[in-house]
Amino acid sequence: MIPRHDPQLKAFASDNYAGVHPEILQAIVQANGGHQIAYGDDVYTEALRQVFQRHFGDSAQVWPVFNGTAANVVSLRSMTAHWEAVICAESAHIHTDEGGAPEVAGGIKLLTVPTPDGKLTPELIDRQAWGFGDVHRAQPKVVSISNTTEWGTLYTPEEIAAICAHAHDLGLLVHLDGSRLTNAAAALDVPMRALTTDAGVDVLSFGGTKIGLLYGEAVVVLNPSAATGVDYIRKTFMQLSSKMRFVSAQFEALLSGDLWLRNARQANAMGRRLAEAVSRIPGVTLPRPVEANAVFAILPKDVTERLQKRFRFYTWNEATGEVRWMCAFDTTEADVDAFAAAVAEEMRA
Amino acid sequence: MIPRHDPQLKAFASDNYAGVHPEILQAIVQANGGHQIAYGDDVYTEALRQVFQRHFGDSAQVWPVFNGTAANVVSLRSMTAHWEAVICAESAHIHTDEGGAPEVAGGIKLLTVPTPDGKLTPELIDRQAWGFGDVHRAQPKVVSISNTTEWGTLYTPEEIAAICAHAHDLGLLVHLDGSRLTNAAAALDVPMRALTTDAGVDVLSFGGTKIGLLYGEAVVVLNPSAATGVDYIRKTFMQLSSKMRFVSAQFEALLSGDLWLRNARQANAMGRRLAEAVSRIPGVTLPRPVEANAVFAILPKDVTERLQKRFRFYTWNEATGEVRWMCAFDTTEADVDAFAAAVAEEMRA
Amino acid sequence: MIPRHDPQLKAFASDNYAGVHPEILQAIVQANGGHQIAYGDDVYTEALRQVFQRHFGDSAQVWPVFNGTAANVVSLRSMTAHWEAVICAESAHIHTDEGGAPEVAGGIKLLTVPTPDGKLTPELIDRQAWGFGDVHRAQPKVVSISNTTEWGTLYTPEEIAAICAHAHDLGLLVHLDGSRLTNAAAALDVPMRALTTDAGVDVLSFGGTKIGLLYGEAVVVLNPSAATGVDYIRKTFMQLSSKMRFVSAQFEALLSGDLWLRNARQANAMGRRLAEAVSRIPGVTLPRPVEANAVFAILPKDVTERLQKRFRFYTWNEATGEVRWMCAFDTTEADVDAFAAAVAEEMRA
Amino acid sequence: MIPRHDPQLKAFASDNYAGVHPEILQAIVQANGGHQIAYGDDVYTEALRQVFQRHFGDSAQVWPVFNGTAANVVSLRSMTAHWEAVICAESAHIHTDEGGAPEVAGGIKLLTVPTPDGKLTPELIDRQAWGFGDVHRAQPKVVSISNTTEWGTLYTPEEIAAICAHAHDLGLLVHLDGSRLTNAAAALDVPMRALTTDAGVDVLSFGGTKIGLLYGEAVVVLNPSAATGVDYIRKTFMQLSSKMRFVSAQFEALLSGDLWLRNARQANAMGRRLAEAVSRIPGVTLPRPVEANAVFAILPKDVTERLQKRFRFYTWNEATGEVRWMCAFDTTEADVDAFAAAVAEEMRA
Repeated sequence: MIPRHDPQLKAFASDNYAGVHPEILQAIVQANGGHQIAYGDDVYTEALRQVFQRHFGDSAQVWPVFNGTAANVVSLRSMTAHWEAVICAESAHIHTDEGGAPEVAGGIKLLTVPTPDGKLTPELIDRQAWGFGDVHRAQPKVVSISNTTEWGTLYTPEEIAAICAHAHDLGLLVHLDGSRLTNAAAALDVPMRALTTDAGVDVLSFGGTKIGLLYGEAVVVLNPSAATGVDYIRKTFMQLSSKMRFVSAQFEALLSGDLWLRNARQANAMGRRLAEAVSRIPGVTLPRPVEANAVFAILPKDVTERLQKRFRFYTWNEATGEVRWMCAFDTTEADVDAFAAAVAEEMRA
Repeated sequence: MIPRHDPQLKAFASDNYAGVHPEILQAIVQANGGHQIAYGDDVYTEALRQVFQRHFGDSAQVWPVFNGTAANVVSLRSMTAHWEAVICAESAHIHTDEGGAPEVAGGIKLLTVPTPDGKLTPELIDRQAWGFGDVHRAQPKVVSISNTTEWGTLYTPEEIAAICAHAHDLGLLVHLDGSRLTNAAAALDVPMRALTTDAGVDVLSFGGTKIGLLYGEAVVVLNPSAATGVDYIRKTFMQLSSKMRFVSAQFEALLSGDLWLRNARQANAMGRRLAEAVSRIPGVTLPRPVEANAVFAILPKDVTERLQKRFRFYTWNEATGEVRWMCAFDTTEADVDAFAAAVAEEMRA
Repeated sequence: MIPRHDPQLKAFASDNYAGVHPEILQAIVQANGGHQIAYGDDVYTEALRQVFQRHFGDSAQVWPVFNGTAANVVSLRSMTAHWEAVICAESAHIHTDEGGAPEVAGGIKLLTVPTPDGKLTPELIDRQAWGFGDVHRAQPKVVSISNTTEWGTLYTPEEIAAICAHAHDLGLLVHLDGSRLTNAAAALDVPMRALTTDAGVDVLSFGGTKIGLLYGEAVVVLNPSAATGVDYIRKTFMQLSSKMRFVSAQFEALLSGDLWLRNARQANAMGRRLAEAVSRIPGVTLPRPVEANAVFAILPKDVTERLQKRFRFYTWNEATGEVRWMCAFDTTEADVDAFAAAVAEEMRA
Repeated sequence: MIPRHDPQLKAFASDNYAGVHPEILQAIVQANGGHQIAYGDDVYTEALRQVFQRHFGDSAQVWPVFNGTAANVVSLRSMTAHWEAVICAESAHIHTDEGGAPEVAGGIKLLTVPTPDGKLTPELIDRQAWGFGDVHRAQPKVVSISNTTEWGTLYTPEEIAAICAHAHDLGLLVHLDGSRLTNAAAALDVPMRALTTDAGVDVLSFGGTKIGLLYGEAVVVLNPSAATGVDYIRKTFMQLSSKMRFVSAQFEALLSGDLWLRNARQANAMGRRLAEAVSRIPGVTLPRPVEANAVFAILPKDVTERLQKRFRFYTWNEATGEVRWMCAFDTTEADVDAFAAAVAEEMRA
């Protein structure tokens, strides 16, 4: 097979446009050969719990799944009884970008709250955290937050701790969609457990794909009493990998050293570099703080159209002309500079 | 990361104990680098339809998914309305080995039929194909068969054609669980389309993992009018891979040349070799025909126990002492000979 | 059995606190005796289609179900494919008061829109009617509105026609939750078809319980191409009554003459009477138009508490002190006057 | 409204072809008038727990629902986690006659066992009670039996006790579909608790409709630790009646005195009378014991056809010519004699 694509081409559309980090590929190669027990009883998956415990504490348990939608739905279903519901921001990925998977495949109702910046607060949670014991109201049971958020913003450890304390006071559990948790920890320069275990998060969807894995996300249960039946739910939700050794080996390569941190820092640094570069271009507005690897910008629509012929990226809001530029672990300074130059050029055109 | 396992060790437990074929790994490496559009709009996935059409005809459409359970559930859900049911053998993988995924995640009722050998026939189908129009009875809509079957047996093209003709006469559609379709085609020495498109199969779950992929199966719609909404169902059933280029590149490596056939022939030849070797060992009974890469045998239980300390394999029926030995694409003659010698040795012990 | 309750006692809590209208009870008695085919093949159900067609036009088809939640969920599921979603007001009963039934039992995602008065408009629909063809977004397929709304407000025929025209232009269908459709038609002094069939509504949940039935609501398909499999969905959603003759006989009693209209006019008139009476009481605010049988009022909380010891009714908004008073078909002028006097008394206390 | 049917006409098709017993109708009338709190907080429902406790012991809790399918699905869902399955006879109503409701609406997998007479035994249960802890196998959690069975046969208290003891030893719960529990208790001349609470049954679907109610069945939890969330599941499964006082008043009329027993005895006696009468007719075979109100018979097909023009009843097995005749609480000796005479007449024709 001859490569069909130009491996030099970069986009600013999403961090999952990137490929696989070489160290991850190497781990797959090393895990290859011979036979290993299928469906998670292999030696790589056996080692995985310790790998995650180093980051998330001794109570952490881990179940690899295939993708982020699944990590979220398996997490939420394992935290809820049949009739229980999940409070989340209106902009949450589980609400806006998973095709209805929580409801359609999981049967889970979402109770959404509008937010200015993609972030819930105890006060915002209260807008949906009521009606306990009333059979007419879907019973709130879980608060789900994303870090980084879908708007590229960050929760600090203190903000998460406040949410968890409030949720727990109300008898609610907290789920964190950590599709980009590595970016958040790197940006805040804190260990990942500061944003999760130590802050009181009960269950985490840990993201691997966007930070350099070929495929693989994980349901990480931090509070063992918060989730039940993850083994079975993962299977019935079609997420049990037969050759799981390869998922586990990738996570080990990502997490046993500092690869996760190097990749996250690189993506974040490129985000900052891009924000700085474009902020100097007249006519470009950055309406949101750039806290990690996502840059939101407002451009004239004709500029966007011309620019999208040269680089792929998404318009986030047709009405306002807001676009999203996302940097990945493999985005280089040269990539950013070329893109910023193109923005400048098209703004002048 | 240092390899944690012995790459020389082989088992006879399942073809998904095997790792990744080197040509498949090479395809992943070649598809790496640079950015590609996520979620299936990449150049590798674009090419995939043609790859499958070469094998399954010009009407074939293909949707890669992560695993076999998902290929089956997405296929079946796309073929049925909310209230429609699926007829299958009592031994079907969808009934016995998917943790209830069709019912739990898919909401699909299965109507099962006992069979002597894992194979349905028009007559056996009739045991469940009734009650059309009666709201009290879950409405049969799909007949699902597996080739090779869960008992290692084969359907011939003629047998499948008879099933499809009968099903279509009744207004039913036919789904084929082709988790080991490559093995079946190789064993029968026919092209895969003889067992699918040409025989009248409507939708196929095509298996990649067991024949050498790292991960990846595919929903292949052969009759475009038989399935609706596969795009959406795949997403809501948590099966849309973001870095899909790598799944597609693997399938291209498997199917654009003869890798699928080489791998299937090797696994099947090793199955035959093993069957022949053990059939000469006094006290070992082979209760079923060995038609592809699975060998079922009946051994004294103490022999099984001692043997399982040396090689992994599964007891299929505790009551009768029947065990299953499965050969993979990477099983070698030396592996078979060593295992057969061990069987002989333990039988004598 | 001796009656356990005081049949003189009235409340202002809900129109389903009322009992059964005597003419409805009489219809049940008349339908009793002898044997009739179960599950809807009886002579009363046979006659039902014509009864509904007189009100809703010749294309109307009707499926009785047990309650309003079911009428809504069966309607919506029959209008949508597995992955399709429903746009509704944030205050819609299907979102706020059905315990999550659409999502939990039906697997249907709701896309909600905040409204000032419980009413959608073409502009408000557009806030969720987008992303068609994007697998990441739950696909909007149905717009669901309620008339009267959960805030006691009314849609006019013109407003509904505008919604339907807009929805149909977008490829969407329109469902009307007509739990109180009779009240709406009576208040507007139009035939029920002006608010449904003639305005372009595709499927209607028709409410019987609140307007005097013992039990019974109906899925009424006005546009035959808008719904599929209602027979089967009703059964699998546990809504097929065995002794259906009694549900059908009740509907015939309600709809073949003017009982529906007499009952609705009475309830509405009592709503107006109550609104007029309390609007003259200093300190009582009526924050919303009283258009049918629901009166929303803002009272000091201590007044509400004292009043609730004398008459049952619900606080609708703890924060603002807004309460809801609902009149039923059996609410009398004396009931209203006694209640209004009590309000005045407690306001002075 | 003029009655549309002949109240003298009787059938032998099903006990739900019958209407409402006059004492039940009277209870509805007595519960009418005035306002009662909706959704189960009325005085009749308040009294209901005691009514059931008199029959089923002090731990019994009761939740009225609309129909038998719902009683079963709500019961089973309240006894199982998302991934857990139910063992039942292949002939069980939940498997054959509920349109797939357990799977489609409930997401519950059924594991069926063929039986000679519709009755499970500890040995038959073992054919599906295995694979505990294996994620690939839907996890058995509940054994569901019907008494009387779908074949008109009876479980004795001892047989049920043996099933419950065995199930509990395996960590399984026992559900009893008591759609005709009254008939079973009357036939065996034992109190209903001998067949349920005292035998170890955990949750009961109690049938009211077939024994003379207008509508209404009940989920009766006998072992409080066996079911969770019945309140919420009933609501999300669309089974919460707003005017619940009327369901509860019917149950009180049925169960507070001996109406249930009188009705059951009458139906059973008519079954026996019919069996005796037809057993004397040459050419009629009764292939099963007649233990309660159902009579199965084998007739020449032409006789069946002619007879069905005179009386409604169902062919149960087209192949063998087996038909089912069901007697109801309102079947009289004259009805039976007329029917038996017709059978004799058609056999001679």
